[in-house]
Order: sequence, then structure tokens, then C-alpha cells
Amino acid sequence: MTPITPLLQATQQAAAAVRRLSPARKTDLLNRLADVLLAHKIDILAENQKDLDRMPESDPKYDRLKLTDARIDGLATSLRDVAVLPDPAGEVLIDRTIEQGLQLKKIAVPLGVVGVIYEARPNVTIDVASLCLRSGNACVLKGGKEADFSNRYLVGLIQSVLAEFDVPTAAVTLLPPDRAVVGELLTATRYVDIIIPRGSESLIQFVRKNSLVPTIETGAGVCHAYVEATADLTKAAAIVINGRVSRPSVCNSLDCMLVDTVIAGQFLPMLIDDLRKWNVEVFADESSYAILYDAGYEQLQHAQPDDFGREFLDYKLAIKLVDGLDEALSHIQAYSSRHSEAIVSQNQSLIDQFLREVDAAAVYANASTRFTDGGVFGLGAEIGISTQKLHARGPFALEKLVTEKWIVTGDGQVRW
Amino acid sequence: MTPITPLLQATQQAAAAVRRLSPARKTDLLNRLADVLLAHKIDILAENQKDLDRMPESDPKYDRLKLTDARIDGLATSLRDVAVLPDPAGEVLIDRTIEQGLQLKKIAVPLGVVGVIYEARPNVTIDVASLCLRSGNACVLKGGKEADFSNRYLVGLIQSVLAEFDVPTAAVTLLPPDRAVVGELLTATRYVDIIIPRGSESLIQFVRKNSLVPTIETGAGVCHAYVEATADLTKAAAIVINGRVSRPSVCNSLDCMLVDTVIAGQFLPMLIDDLRKWNVEVFADESSYAILYDAGYEQLQHAQPDDFGREFLDYKLAIKLVDGLDEALSHIQAYSSRHSEAIVSQNQSLIDQFLREVDAAAVYANASTRFTDGGVFGLGAEIGISTQKLHARGPFALEKLVTEKWIVTGDGQVRW
Repeated sequence: MTPITPLLQATQQAAAAVRRLSPARKTDLLNRLADVLLAHKIDILAENQKDLDRMPESDPKYDRLKLTDARIDGLATSLRDVAVLPDPAGEVLIDRTIEQGLQLKKIAVPLGVVGVIYEARPNVTIDVASLCLRSGNACVLKGGKEADFSNRYLVGLIQSVLAEFDVPTAAVTLLPPDRAVVGELLTATRYVDIIIPRGSESLIQFVRKNSLVPTIETGAGVCHAYVEATADLTKAAAIVINGRVSRPSVCNSLDCMLVDTVIAGQFLPMLIDDLRKWNVEVFADESSYAILYDAGYEQLQHAQPDDFGREFLDYKLAIKLVDGLDEALSHIQAYSSRHSEAIVSQNQSLIDQFLREVDAAAVYANASTRFTDGGVFGLGAEIGISTQKLHARGPFALEKLVTEKWIVTGDGQVRW
Repeated sequence: MTPITPLLQATQQAAAAVRRLSPARKTDLLNRLADVLLAHKIDILAENQKDLDRMPESDPKYDRLKLTDARIDGLATSLRDVAVLPDPAGEVLIDRTIEQGLQLKKIAVPLGVVGVIYEARPNVTIDVASLCLRSGNACVLKGGKEADFSNRYLVGLIQSVLAEFDVPTAAVTLLPPDRAVVGELLTATRYVDIIIPRGSESLIQFVRKNSLVPTIETGAGVCHAYVEATADLTKAAAIVINGRVSRPSVCNSLDCMLVDTVIAGQFLPMLIDDLRKWNVEVFADESSYAILYDAGYEQLQHAQPDDFGREFLDYKLAIKLVDGLDEALSHIQAYSSRHSEAIVSQNQSLIDQFLREVDAAAVYANASTRFTDGGVFGLGAEIGISTQKLHARGPFALEKLVTEKWIVTGDGQVRW
């Protein structure tokens, strides 16, 4: 029994009420919540301002913490989108007759209580609550203390809508923003069915190390693009530049380009205008350094060993020349974080081998790694990208907020 | 880098070779292994005898450790059964065109390297290796030191067959039977994709607490049967007795019976002949104690609080009277280990409510909990019964030894 146990018990009990809501009722609830958010914009912004006042504008988290008129509109739109997504719970996965005429069904059911630990982004509060409610789950939220005014107000609005729909307000519970709460949550195996850490690598590592509750890791993306000798070099250049610069701070952005030695002399100079335009700092291995140096590229560093396998989250790119597919595969095997990996090639058998042998959540042929996203993949909103292999791999979206349940009905059958 | 890192690296590399085997080739390999086991019976038994010689016959693990002629036949039969199970890897789960004409597929792929930690049962060595190979996975096995002669000989036979099929022998790796190895294995996130502990509750707790690698918990079964007021009492008696006595030491056996107060006076005496026949020790709450005492049952104890929620694994049964479904549900919610739970009733709306609201891997209406089993459910051999909710719930069998992979093919698409 820890100080938060009563809160978790209440959430677990409320989960039964959420499970009982019909799909149509959940749609109504989420649409109503969208209305309520919009109707309380001024108050939301005022509470958010109290959080912002405690943080210097120069803090890199300031922008994530900040809500605006447009961002609240975005949250409402996202709520209405989630409201009409198909309900993953209730699907019949197996239906068969087994020995002695027993009727066996496997159905998808809500997980129960979903715990999410996140940092200074109040929008996560709405995103997580909406996905959990849509899929029939209750949730316990542990947000960052920097966003506590915002989170408390937003959860208050959510709970007012829950009450309107006769759902116990504990179905969406905000935990106190104390550090000690995290440790208590991670050991609450009796009350919490899954924990998802959303945030920095250090948060994820802490959860991985300390959680007794099963977790989904939405980890770092150290992504590679391999430009194979037969690649269409114009397309390859577009894919590499897009992967690196279109949104450098996200996990599906490109960190390392591997280029076949035989085309490097022709290909690397083709990148220079764009690299220069975006002011990309290049960490080059010896051979690519020589080519880029001769071509007059300025933002050039000698790659150090730990520049490979590094998630830059910035206008920075590692480059290494390789002698063919096997060397590319073994580099990726050694340095990839198993998120998104691409090949650019016109040789179908090499493409097939790459797609088959690279061990990652998403593998690409002749396209940018930037497409790895729940929305793009047609799954709706996502909680993150899973780089582990159990339960969910790649975009972790509504469809994975369920577990399975076996239902056996008989007429007195026994098994000796 | 730990002492076993080179072994794990070799297994990871071998996994690529296993992944490449065709379904037909894997069938041949497993059938060949069945032949090899049978051809080496005498040597297997001799090695097993060396293990047996180190353990007193009175040790409860002695029977699990012991291999016999018939048990080796059973292993060979089981190998031939697994050999023809459909391959879970390769299945196309999603195939659609997304934005810009990108082709998106989600396919089932092998997990990679499966780690299994188990105790003194050499048959697990063959079971796990066969399921892993069938599904395209490599495995690292950490068996108990009591079974080390048997395990080393069996893995030697497996590796000889792997070599015949040009698969690196590291695809099935037996780790040294030292305790320190467990700690090293549990932190080998770079090389091992999943860890499954098979054995005692204390082993499972240790793994849960210390593993950085995702795990599947195949936990204890604290199973209940609720005899509702409208139950067919003859069927109810058969279900309860079967659940408790047919195989007391397994996880799907019955630990606690809940009986509606209104029928207890009629129903409990109906059990006495069978309870007596099987010499079942009853831990009864106050009300059921009085009834059984008056009916003359001898093996009767007053239930202590921790007799509820206890997995007896023996001819022992807890009994409690309840006033209707709600009390039964809240008792089960409080004490169940979420394995298998049953209702016996003729009231369909109460049955439906029970099946819907009980949170367990398997829920039963009018049948014994003893049916929870991968083979019975039509899944083939199982590694255990998962009582957690992620990835696999209920029988953990071949179909769950896979993960997913997203494959995106394009023609130069980028995302700004």
C-alpha cells in the first residue's frame, strides 16, 4: 500500500464502467469533450499561462508546454477524429468448437488501466485520455510538474464530461506531480495493466529498469538510409535530405547515410547545395570526408566512433561509405535502434534482401523514413513508436490498447 | 560485455539463418530431430541417469527431471506435431496503399532470439527448441544445473541436426548452468528479444524484477468456480471436483469454490463423497464450515485470510459462500491471478455478465477450468499460460513467437 494506492484502486473500479460503455456512447463522450474544450479555451489558456510563467522562454521545453488558440482547436479536432475510429475492443478473433463440443472464442478486450508517464506536454493529457476512453480503458496520468496547472484543469474538464455520462471520474486520474509517485506507479502490478513512458531517453530507461508493470517502450530512432550502387541518385538525394531536415527533432528522422563506395564520388557532391541550404553539419568517415572536402563543403567533421548509432535530433548527419549490401546490413545491425531503415536502389533482389534482413519496426525501399507514423499508416492517432518487439511494434495506436480474452462455454464438460 | 556476450552474439547471427529457412525445410529439420532422439535413446537415458544420481528420489523435482523410454517417445511425437504446425511468420497482416501511392504491408516475422529460463525439466529443452525453430527463431536456453547432463546431451543432438541442415549450431545455445548467467541474460537487451521464465513463482518474480529484456510471465493460477443459485448442481459438483482433483499440481486446477448461500445447504453435502474419495482438505469460511461439519466431513479447516488467493497445487480447496453474483465478482477481482475463472449457472444474463466482467485470460461458463491449454485450444504445444495482458494472454504458443514488421515500398516519395 503506497500513498497513491487508493487512487489506483478507484481507477481500476472505474475501468469496469468504461468497459461497459457502448461504442456509440464513447463517440458521444469524446465529441462532447471536444465541445467542452472549445467552450473553455480562455480558462485553459489562463491555467497554461500559470505554467508558462514558471518557465523561462529560453527553455527548450517552453514551446512544448505552450497551448495556443490554434493548438486547442487541434486538440478538439483530434478528439473528433478519435471519436469515430473503430472500436478495437469486442472484435472476435477466434470462434471455434473444440473437444466435447465446447464453444471457444477469443475476443479483443480493453487492457483495463493504462498508466502513462510523460513530461511537459499538456496535449498528451488529452491525446492519451481520448485513446484510452475510445478503446474502453481507464487511465492514470503522471504528467510533468511544469505542466501541472494545465493538466489539472484539463483533467477537471475531462472528469466533468465523464460525470455527465455517468462514468466514475476516476476513469481518468491525474496523479500528483511528485517524483516519488513514479516509483509507486511502476510497482502497482495489482492495479495497472500497462505503463507507457513518453518522453526523454532517460525517462524511458528509468521505466525500463524499474517497472514491474509491463511496459511499451517508445524509444529513440537511430535511422539509416543506404544508397545502393544502382540507386536513382536524384531520388536518393531527395530522400536523404527530406529524412534529415524536414523535421529534425522527431524519431523517424534520418541520422546516418550509408553510400556505396562506387557511386560516392558522383553522389556526395550532388547533396552539397541542399546540405548547405539547411546548414547540415556532417560527421563523415574518412573516405566520404575526402570527397566532401574536395567538393568544398564547409560544415564537415571527422566522424568519431560514437557519431554512429547517435540520434542527433538536429541538423546533423553521419555519413559512411560501404562496399555493398552486406557491409550496409552489418553496420545497420550494429548501430540501428530498430526504428526505421531505408534502402535506395533499383536492384530488386538487393531491395528484397534488405527488406527481409533488416531487423526494424519499419523498413523502406525508395522512400523517406519520415513516413513512420500512426496517422500515415492509417491507424489514427498514436501514443508513440514502439521499438520493442512484444505486443506492439512501430506506431502504437488505438488498435493495440486491447488484450485478448478466451471465453469457453459448455454444458458441464470436465477434463480428466 | 559479460562472459556470455560472445555466445549471445553468435545466437543473434544464427537467428538470421533460421529466419531464412523455408517452412518445408523446418518441417524436415524437426522430423529429423525426432528420428535422432529416438536413435539415441540409450545415450539420452544414460546422461539423464547421471543427473538423477545427483538428486535424492524423495526430491519433488525428481519426477520432472526423469526421462524414460515413453517420455522420449512423447518428445519425438511432439516434435513431429510441431513440425507440421503452420508457420506463424510470413503472414501478411495488412496490405494497403497509403499517401502518395506508397505500398504498405505489415507482416508477421520471427522475434529473433528467444531466451528461456527454466528449472529441472529436460523436456523443456526439446519443447522450446522445436517451437522456436518452427517459428523461425533462435533460442538461448538457461536450464537448471540439476538437469545439466541431460540438457547438454540433448542440445548436442539438436546442434548435430542443425549442422546437417547448414544452420549455425548457435541457433540453439545452451548457457552454462551458473546463477550469474541469469543476471547477464536479463540485461542483454542488445541480443535477446524476449525472455520467458518457466518454473516456480520465485523464478518468475526474480525475472520480473530484474529483466531489462521484455518478458512473458507465465504465472500462477489461482482459479475460482462460482456455483450460482440456478446451477445444475450435479454438473456443478462434477466441474468442481474435476477442477480440483484431476491434476492438482497444474496451474489451471481449481483453488477456490464460491457458492451462493441459498443453495449451499443443498449443494455442499452433494460434494462430500467425492471430496472424501480424493481426500481433499477443505479450507472453509464460517458458513460453509458449519454446513460441511454438520454433514460429517472430516478434512475440514477454518479458512484463514490467506487461504483465499492461494494456489494450492495439491488436494486442497478453499470454499466461501457469497450472496449473489456481485459478491462473487468482487471476491474474484480481489483474489484471482487472472488465469482461469468459471461460473456454473443456468441464468443466461448472469452468465453473460460473469463472462464479460471477470478479468482473466480464460473465463468459463458451465465447464471445468482444466481446459485452459494450448493444445486443447487448438494452438499446438505451448510454452506456458500467460497471465499478463501484453502480447500474449492465455496459452503462449507458436502463434505468439512472432512480432510485426512494417514494409513500405515507394518510388522516391518524401514527406515534408
